[in-house]
Amino acid sequence: MRIALLGGTGNIGEGLALRWAPRHDVVIGSRSAEKAAEAALYCVERLSQEGFTCELSGEENIQAIAECDVVVLALQYQFAIPTAAAIEGSLNPHAIVVSPVVPMTKDGFLRYIPPAKYSSAALEIQDTLPHNEVVSAFHTTPAARLIDLKDKLGLDVLVCGSEKPKKIVMALVKDIEGLTPFDAGPLEASFMVESITPLLINISARNQMKDSSIRIIGQRIG
Amino acid sequence: MRIALLGGTGNIGEGLALRWAPRHDVVIGSRSAEKAAEAALYCVERLSQEGFTCELSGEENIQAIAECDVVVLALQYQFAIPTAAAIEGSLNPHAIVVSPVVPMTKDGFLRYIPPAKYSSAALEIQDTLPHNEVVSAFHTTPAARLIDLKDKLGLDVLVCGSEKPKKIVMALVKDIEGLTPFDAGPLEASFMVESITPLLINISARNQMKDSSIRIIGQRIG
Repeated sequence: MRIALLGGTGNIGEGLALRWAPRHDVVIGSRSAEKAAEAALYCVERLSQEGFTCELSGEENIQAIAECDVVVLALQYQFAIPTAAAIEGSLNPHAIVVSPVVPMTKDGFLRYIPPAKYSSAALEIQDTLPHNEVVSAFHTTPAARLIDLKDKLGLDVLVCGSEKPKKIVMALVKDIEGLTPFDAGPLEASFMVESITPLLINISARNQMKDSSIRIIGQRIG
Repeated sequence: MRIALLGGTGNIGEGLALRWAPRHDVVIGSRSAEKAAEAALYCVERLSQEGFTCELSGEENIQAIAECDVVVLALQYQFAIPTAAAIEGSLNPHAIVVSPVVPMTKDGFLRYIPPAKYSSAALEIQDTLPHNEVVSAFHTTPAARLIDLKDKLGLDVLVCGSEKPKKIVMALVKDIEGLTPFDAGPLEASFMVESITPLLINISARNQMKDSSIRIIGQRIG
């Protein structure tokens, strides 16, 4: 599968690039072609230290999304929406757009603030890209843990979206060893997942923790 | 500590009564004094089977809250707000009010819907009881697991509120073996905890699970 990681020059984008490159055709996208190429080179070198020979390219965003099956908007909210608008005319209609985007603000503590017109960043991105399916995922996946290839993870990923594209994204989550996908409902349910990110950052700060995340526990039935 | 569990005749209230009674002076409250007395008797018998001799009484709500240090509103949202209003004049000003309350609605999936005038049930209850400190907790604690005294739990409880009453409630959480409290911020942050409840119910339904909950994972620092 061809996966473009827009914002793949840092944080969660770089982590996903490193974790997916051994199995998928990964392209790192950035507003700067140079920064994208540098990030791709870094990932290739880092993976070769772990014994993987991966092809991984870096391109300016519009070039990066060409022929892509999946595009991840690995960007902060304030950059994610303009980037979604910028790629709108160039995106394959079959490409699935993955949103790990969380709008937040700080007033003493971090607070989730969904865009006024929508109930979540995921729905705003869906409205910005009406010809593509948006799936939300990876909101609670600590970037630092993805980037550390020695880390065995053991993390759960809550995924929201329409049934068909959600299944594809859940399979991509499973392709990363140590990540377990959970179906968290339709895209309209994404606000309940997005709000966990600021909550976790608050909990980290108040309970002397870092890289915190959640795991889903419960009894399997049926 | 004297703890009144309003709505202690079912679910989370009964579970907390059973778990706290060996260490605290527990009163079960209900709109019906008979139902409260029956529930208290059931708890005493259930605890004696486990080798605990506990005094545990059942009273109508207004009697139940007399002299209480902590009052838990273990009620569904639509009953919790009128109950809070009904006890307002009778509550000790020093009593801490604990809210596990979550407003939700179903439209294909469960959705968190905070009251229009407030951002969370906890803030609405705080506004209804302006002379008392409200702390929110136990939103993600499965009632069925609390009630089953053989269950060793292993659950995390996210707690929101002002620093002083929050510390008291976090200590009460720790008094239940198998529960670990996490400081999740001020009461204004409660909306991010409350919304996890409908999310977990959706996840249970979609991933063939029951009694699901979350655990906080992360690296302890400092």
